[in-house]
Amino acid sequence: MKYAIVGSGAIGAYYGAKLAYAGNEVHFLLHSDHDFVRRNGLQVDSCDGSFHLDSPSVYRSTAEMPRCDVVIVALKTVNNHLLPSLLPPLLASDTLVLLIQNGIGVEADVQAMFPGVWLTAGLAFICSAKTTPGTVNHQCYGSINIGNYSCPDKSKVARMIAEMQSAGIASAEVDYNEARWKKAVWNMPFNGLTVALNTQTNCLLANPSTRTLVKEMMMEVVGAACALGVNGLDEAFADKMIQNTLEMTPYSPSMKLDFDFKRPMEIEYLYSRPIVLAREAGFEMGKLAMLEQQLRFIQTQYLG
Amino acid sequence: MKYAIVGSGAIGAYYGAKLAYAGNEVHFLLHSDHDFVRRNGLQVDSCDGSFHLDSPSVYRSTAEMPRCDVVIVALKTVNNHLLPSLLPPLLASDTLVLLIQNGIGVEADVQAMFPGVWLTAGLAFICSAKTTPGTVNHQCYGSINIGNYSCPDKSKVARMIAEMQSAGIASAEVDYNEARWKKAVWNMPFNGLTVALNTQTNCLLANPSTRTLVKEMMMEVVGAACALGVNGLDEAFADKMIQNTLEMTPYSPSMKLDFDFKRPMEIEYLYSRPIVLAREAGFEMGKLAMLEQQLRFIQTQYLG
Repeated sequence: MKYAIVGSGAIGAYYGAKLAYAGNEVHFLLHSDHDFVRRNGLQVDSCDGSFHLDSPSVYRSTAEMPRCDVVIVALKTVNNHLLPSLLPPLLASDTLVLLIQNGIGVEADVQAMFPGVWLTAGLAFICSAKTTPGTVNHQCYGSINIGNYSCPDKSKVARMIAEMQSAGIASAEVDYNEARWKKAVWNMPFNGLTVALNTQTNCLLANPSTRTLVKEMMMEVVGAACALGVNGLDEAFADKMIQNTLEMTPYSPSMKLDFDFKRPMEIEYLYSRPIVLAREAGFEMGKLAMLEQQLRFIQTQYLG
Repeated sequence: MKYAIVGSGAIGAYYGAKLAYAGNEVHFLLHSDHDFVRRNGLQVDSCDGSFHLDSPSVYRSTAEMPRCDVVIVALKTVNNHLLPSLLPPLLASDTLVLLIQNGIGVEADVQAMFPGVWLTAGLAFICSAKTTPGTVNHQCYGSINIGNYSCPDKSKVARMIAEMQSAGIASAEVDYNEARWKKAVWNMPFNGLTVALNTQTNCLLANPSTRTLVKEMMMEVVGAACALGVNGLDEAFADKMIQNTLEMTPYSPSMKLDFDFKRPMEIEYLYSRPIVLAREAGFEMGKLAMLEQQLRFIQTQYLG
């Protein structure tokens, strides 16, 4: 299948490069480092083995790109207002769009922009960064959990997942909603608290007050998921997330990196949307709603 | 009556100076600026009229001070562990101790240290600072609301209040518990949030997210007071506190000043005690409990 990568940052460039390195046809939309990559290729420094793509197919505009079988959207959600102008040139009637984005409620909004389009959702469990042009630094993990959102052609989803498994970047198919809420159990406490308290995951867990708060927030996510009829989340899962985080090296979640680099934060899909969804189902995520209020203050004060 | 001032900072030095200037006998316990004040006297720069005390009675230790009719304790509550060594030389059997301190639960703890002592509580509504030795800068307000906590001699309390009214520093007697909880309606949101978000009162109210949060937190205090059977607090009172704050100049509450000057914060009596009291009465102050957790993290990370 033919792949397009929309948003070739630390996530999109990594997955596109892995697919290309495995022999697939991949077309990259590049922005700031387009000229560099066209001249020098794309370098992946990876814990799983580094490699270099000498002449990847790179573009400045989707208008120059071919229609593709799979369009991987790996933009930050704060840029999703660009999708109506970016995506149409890439879409055929049977194109699969794979959203590798943070938070809850993204698919519903993208579906509203493109009512007929076949959507799938990917949750990336990866630590990677793109700090210099043309180079992805991949530190650990790397798998995408993929769930079907609105594609009627199950076999096409299965084929995409199979190709991604061959390229070493996907797990078996997951339940879309369960996967989103499970990721939120980790995302919602750690992204916002590392920003609000200007710290990292390890410090939050080393302090008894904030460790308790992290657990209480995780249980709010579990409670919301239960209220919404999502399976598979319970206190044991929350405890496992805390245990996993204790075993990680000190980590700055994506929202903390956005804050540190003075980029807009993904408050909408990481906080506002799940909080409203839960509230509509009768469950109040009180502490996370307060964290959202604090983040909106911080966004306005420090990020303009 | 004879007065002792224990804790001659911006609050204690101001009230002591006003009492002395009105002709009362006042004995000041001084710490860092003892020698300066002994040589140069005490200057009060005040919006209500400045004045100078040429030779106030100042001491390095309460052991050198006389027993007094009224002992005004104006220490920060984080120093209350010093009271068992500071107070005894000042106390006669009928001494009134007036605690001018922040928060809820202070009187109960001081009473436990001194079971027989007659306690009254003073809530200072004042903006003052002591930024150079021997000088109090008094910007606005200045009145103390005084309530009786454990003094069986009502007439002595009335006499103290009358003398303080003559000196221009006290209002009519108030209900102790109602006054404490009313002050908490302002104190609990603004002290902690200005620290957690590193800001001032006006910015919190200018941002719609944090203005909503401030109101929600005020309503938690109102709810806690109701659960504890304290009268006089309702939504209209919370709205009035917000309105008053909108009319103030941008303001850093005492906890924010403590944070800025890297002094310990009064988390215990401003947050932990009222939160636990409310919880014991079946009312959960959820957002304020989260703010307490954040403040305890900040205390450990930045103030050691």
